[in-house]
Amino acid sequence: MLDAIDKKILAEVADLETIPKGAYNIRKNGELLGREVSANINIETNAKRDGIIIDVKPGTVGESVHIPVILSQSGLHDVVYNTFVIGENSDVTIVAGCGIHCGGPESEGHSGVHEFRIKAGAKIRYVEKHLAIGEGSGKRTLNPTTKVVMEEDAQAEMELTQMGGADEAKRFNRARIASRSVLLMTERVMTDGEQSATSTNEIELLETDSRSNIISRSVLKDDSKQDFYVNLTAHAKCYGHIECDAILMGNGNNQTVPALRALHPDAELTHEASIGKIANDQLTKLMSLGLTYDEAVNRIIQGFLA
Amino acid sequence: MLDAIDKKILAEVADLETIPKGAYNIRKNGELLGREVSANINIETNAKRDGIIIDVKPGTVGESVHIPVILSQSGLHDVVYNTFVIGENSDVTIVAGCGIHCGGPESEGHSGVHEFRIKAGAKIRYVEKHLAIGEGSGKRTLNPTTKVVMEEDAQAEMELTQMGGADEAKRFNRARIASRSVLLMTERVMTDGEQSATSTNEIELLETDSRSNIISRSVLKDDSKQDFYVNLTAHAKCYGHIECDAILMGNGNNQTVPALRALHPDAELTHEASIGKIANDQLTKLMSLGLTYDEAVNRIIQGFLA
Repeated sequence: MLDAIDKKILAEVADLETIPKGAYNIRKNGELLGREVSANINIETNAKRDGIIIDVKPGTVGESVHIPVILSQSGLHDVVYNTFVIGENSDVTIVAGCGIHCGGPESEGHSGVHEFRIKAGAKIRYVEKHLAIGEGSGKRTLNPTTKVVMEEDAQAEMELTQMGGADEAKRFNRARIASRSVLLMTERVMTDGEQSATSTNEIELLETDSRSNIISRSVLKDDSKQDFYVNLTAHAKCYGHIECDAILMGNGNNQTVPALRALHPDAELTHEASIGKIANDQLTKLMSLGLTYDEAVNRIIQGFLA
Repeated sequence: MLDAIDKKILAEVADLETIPKGAYNIRKNGELLGREVSANINIETNAKRDGIIIDVKPGTVGESVHIPVILSQSGLHDVVYNTFVIGENSDVTIVAGCGIHCGGPESEGHSGVHEFRIKAGAKIRYVEKHLAIGEGSGKRTLNPTTKVVMEEDAQAEMELTQMGGADEAKRFNRARIASRSVLLMTERVMTDGEQSATSTNEIELLETDSRSNIISRSVLKDDSKQDFYVNLTAHAKCYGHIECDAILMGNGNNQTVPALRALHPDAELTHEASIGKIANDQLTKLMSLGLTYDEAVNRIIQGFLA
């Protein structure tokens, strides 16, 4: 069922060497390749048949669900709408990932809309990786959308990573956060060649003691372009922080536009950003330890995106 | 020629107890009240008769020019276009300021467009203060515009302060910076009541080794609103930093939207922002030294805006 390319993609985007334990749903070229549910985690195709509903029972603790997507069919533009309903007081790990293997001259693309309904007291760790590979000349596009609604006392740790190879990415993340809930979102994007990536983020701290920390790490090689937008809006006594850092490796362009909007007198919002090259003293230090220039650069980039 | 209110305004906005030494131009209610030129600094009314041209001879060092504006006529909306030509290798201080005294029910306003042409190697310190006072119920508006063009190896230190009392302010600052030139711009805005202030900034680092540091300090009392926008665009190997800090004292709203645009691989752009209340530990410390709560708050605000 899985060929060599599929296996390579699964290993990269979902850290899977084989079919995962626990609940999973593997989609390949727009079709279901395999699905497993558990006693506590149900997966079913939605009514419109354009995606799946992942339903985690209240109180489910320590389980995981994997939902990787593989695209290897030239000319295919796959669109999915997945919904995650995370029951009260559960604590689960969700691993999503999309790997494109482009073998031909036609374009391939994946647009995944992931909607999270995180119930009171629930905790999730969500890991999403995107990768595009292959010898084909077709344009690869990846447009992930993440929508998060958090009830009170919930926690979400979200890691959104674009590992490389996507010619064009339009990323959109939205979160609405209720009382005492915490969102930590880290987006890591690597681009090279003539690639472009745009990330637009709308984060709303709606209720008392809601918190969010939004981190963006960008590496721009060659002539690639990345734009990062965040609107962080505080409607209550809350705490929000944004951190955007970009490393320019070649002749790329980077634009970062964070907006802090304090609409409540007890809001506390902070932001830090930096755009620049790798610091020379870091390179010098690593090279003095015996690394070549290229090895030192790679080490720094790996650390930055880790 | 100067009445008691005029003298009070001049003291506040231009640190003048009397007619200044050196070149000056005092404008009151749209009319010239007094002008003095020096051997090196000429002031003349422009061709359109809607402003003045201040011309500083190349090599002028250690001189100052004061150009305060007083408004105390109910219903008057004064608009001026002033041009500063700062000759090569000069080093001068320019003190501008606008004071509105509103004694009646009609609105009063001042819109000053200040254009700076700073020639190679020139250095200026520019201090601009805006204040609105008076018992009148008329709306006071202040719309200062500052446009700066810096040739190479120039330095400009600009302090733009809105001391309070303006019901509505729309501030606009633009700078274009050439090789090895440095712009330090600090904007301080205090609002209270139902006042609103918007500051829009367009800063362009055009050439190699240009530098800018843009600092915004906002204090929002009561229900006032402040919005701060910056576009910092790097077209060359350059260094740019933005720092925006706002203190919310009442129920005010603050929005800060800085855009860092790196259009050159050797650009280095950084940003920091914070919006929040006065830190409790700062208050506690000052109160433990014997200050009352109000005294401690005032001390912190004074320090923040100093």
